[in-house]
Amino acid sequence: MFIGLDIGGANLKASDGRQRSTTQAFELWKAPDALAERLSQILAAWPDAGVAVTMTGELADCFETKQQGVDSILAAVEQAADGRPVQVWQTGGEFVSIEEAREFWRLTAAANWHALATWAGRVVPHGEALLIDVGSTTTDIIPLSCGLPATQGRTDLERLLAGELVYAGVRRTPVAALASEAPLRNRMCPLAAELFATTLDVFLLTGDAAEDPLDCGTADGRPATKANAHNRLAHMLCCDRSEISPAESLAAARFLAQAIVERIASAARRAFAASPEQCGTVLISGAGEAVARAVIARMSEFAAAEIISLNAALGPEHSKSACAYALARLADERLGPSGG
Amino acid sequence: MFIGLDIGGANLKASDGRQRSTTQAFELWKAPDALAERLSQILAAWPDAGVAVTMTGELADCFETKQQGVDSILAAVEQAADGRPVQVWQTGGEFVSIEEAREFWRLTAAANWHALATWAGRVVPHGEALLIDVGSTTTDIIPLSCGLPATQGRTDLERLLAGELVYAGVRRTPVAALASEAPLRNRMCPLAAELFATTLDVFLLTGDAAEDPLDCGTADGRPATKANAHNRLAHMLCCDRSEISPAESLAAARFLAQAIVERIASAARRAFAASPEQCGTVLISGAGEAVARAVIARMSEFAAAEIISLNAALGPEHSKSACAYALARLADERLGPSGG
Repeated sequence: MFIGLDIGGANLKASDGRQRSTTQAFELWKAPDALAERLSQILAAWPDAGVAVTMTGELADCFETKQQGVDSILAAVEQAADGRPVQVWQTGGEFVSIEEAREFWRLTAAANWHALATWAGRVVPHGEALLIDVGSTTTDIIPLSCGLPATQGRTDLERLLAGELVYAGVRRTPVAALASEAPLRNRMCPLAAELFATTLDVFLLTGDAAEDPLDCGTADGRPATKANAHNRLAHMLCCDRSEISPAESLAAARFLAQAIVERIASAARRAFAASPEQCGTVLISGAGEAVARAVIARMSEFAAAEIISLNAALGPEHSKSACAYALARLADERLGPSGG
Repeated sequence: MFIGLDIGGANLKASDGRQRSTTQAFELWKAPDALAERLSQILAAWPDAGVAVTMTGELADCFETKQQGVDSILAAVEQAADGRPVQVWQTGGEFVSIEEAREFWRLTAAANWHALATWAGRVVPHGEALLIDVGSTTTDIIPLSCGLPATQGRTDLERLLAGELVYAGVRRTPVAALASEAPLRNRMCPLAAELFATTLDVFLLTGDAAEDPLDCGTADGRPATKANAHNRLAHMLCCDRSEISPAESLAAARFLAQAIVERIASAARRAFAASPEQCGTVLISGAGEAVARAVIARMSEFAAAEIISLNAALGPEHSKSACAYALARLADERLGPSGG
């Protein structure tokens, strides 16, 4: 059996593709040297399994270059694996050894979307679809053809340009990166260019994200509650909670929620224009599935599309680690006793 | 003699208004409890002086509310002053005691622009002018009338709405807050919504900011050099330095430099529309005086205006701490042996 590991810049995700998945917040850019130890702890839950790896964390700015990032992450994986077999997913669509993954690092970088799409493609009738995966930090928009990713771009840059990667998600995106102003008292008010609030606050206020008093992965380190989200969004208007009302911050939050839907829809139109045959089926996934639904609802191209929710298919635990889950399934299929 | 202290969220500035000024980077939101000790060290250079205070640091999100921020900053000042007289500038245009500053905290919050404008107004013929102070984090646009600040707004929120406060400056502004895309290879490329680069990198690349290998107050904590700025800006395009050329990051930097000029010009038009008589004289100041000149150059309203540079008037040392310098002069005038 192989454990799928998805190593991002802000989260570590692991799954056995069957019974159990786990997601842990880990701010890689703050502590790259602590990665091996954290991975060891995660892998300890599956003592006899091999390790299948994908990553996006190489872009974290603790690494000067992506090559250095790939090297460093692979070294941490190797250390944590402690002799277990390790296989690395590449955007070429296959597993390779750690040595190959290092040598062809450009195919190793930012490959998690590719693993998810490769696995997800097989649930689509005729294999033609568009996958919209709205995550905590970024959104992937992936045309599928014959059940396989058929993107214009393969690297982050190519995918950004093609509208296939949108650097916005439902949790970590700084509000200041989403809009330069927001409505207040029948006017538009410029926003502070500070990391005072993120999209998590937007969706806490609109009610689309659930409050969690134990979750302090927020802009100011205070809990993920509506009251704190109100205060954080107030700061974006250079106010505190005493200067604007909850109704006023809710109005701003609704505007910002629209802004992320519009940004993703605009990219989806670009990505979709290149592959018009995919309008029949849309796969949606990620922490922001609700945003993906809103994107689809505003695009006439998808008026008749069948929508398939990967979260519904996988259930709440696995869907949070969908790339890791997909990777474990791919590894089982290709590298397991019956695979290869 | 009084020392002017300007306590911001990212910098501490002090000046005696005569011989010496100092600016120290201090990330208040990371270490509010260390403020008193840092202020003590700064004040130790002037053992016999009183303390005149202004602030903007109360908006830092280590404080839940501005009132809490004002209280906490004043407590740190009181501790550092250790018995010296302390006077606090308010947007009412006067010095008050610490007790009054606490009670009327709304007038104490974000008052440093007001001190600078009050002092600067006296160098203007007839007292009618517009002051444009482009700082590291924010820009103040302040109409002066009869030599005194004549703004529509007094609080941060009122000033944001009036175009009198622009939350953009030449050093700390995240690039993602300035633009959602930048030119690359004859197309527009979406930018990463991460704190990978700031306006300091933009101006390092354009040559408007000087390199300083000892300065690590950057987005990734690496030195303020062109080479690192290139890599940081590359990350905004989800690249590293191996994927785009220095010429390509320079083109993106030029676009972003224009974006900040346009943002400030747009606000200045709003602030200026309210006070058309001030077109004859423009006072410019701050680390971004060059940006202020570019703003003026693109506004026909200022085609015939006399431009007075406060940096030239104060010299390089005092101009970096202009608000603190102005405060020391005001204190000397109003609170000194010949004042009051």
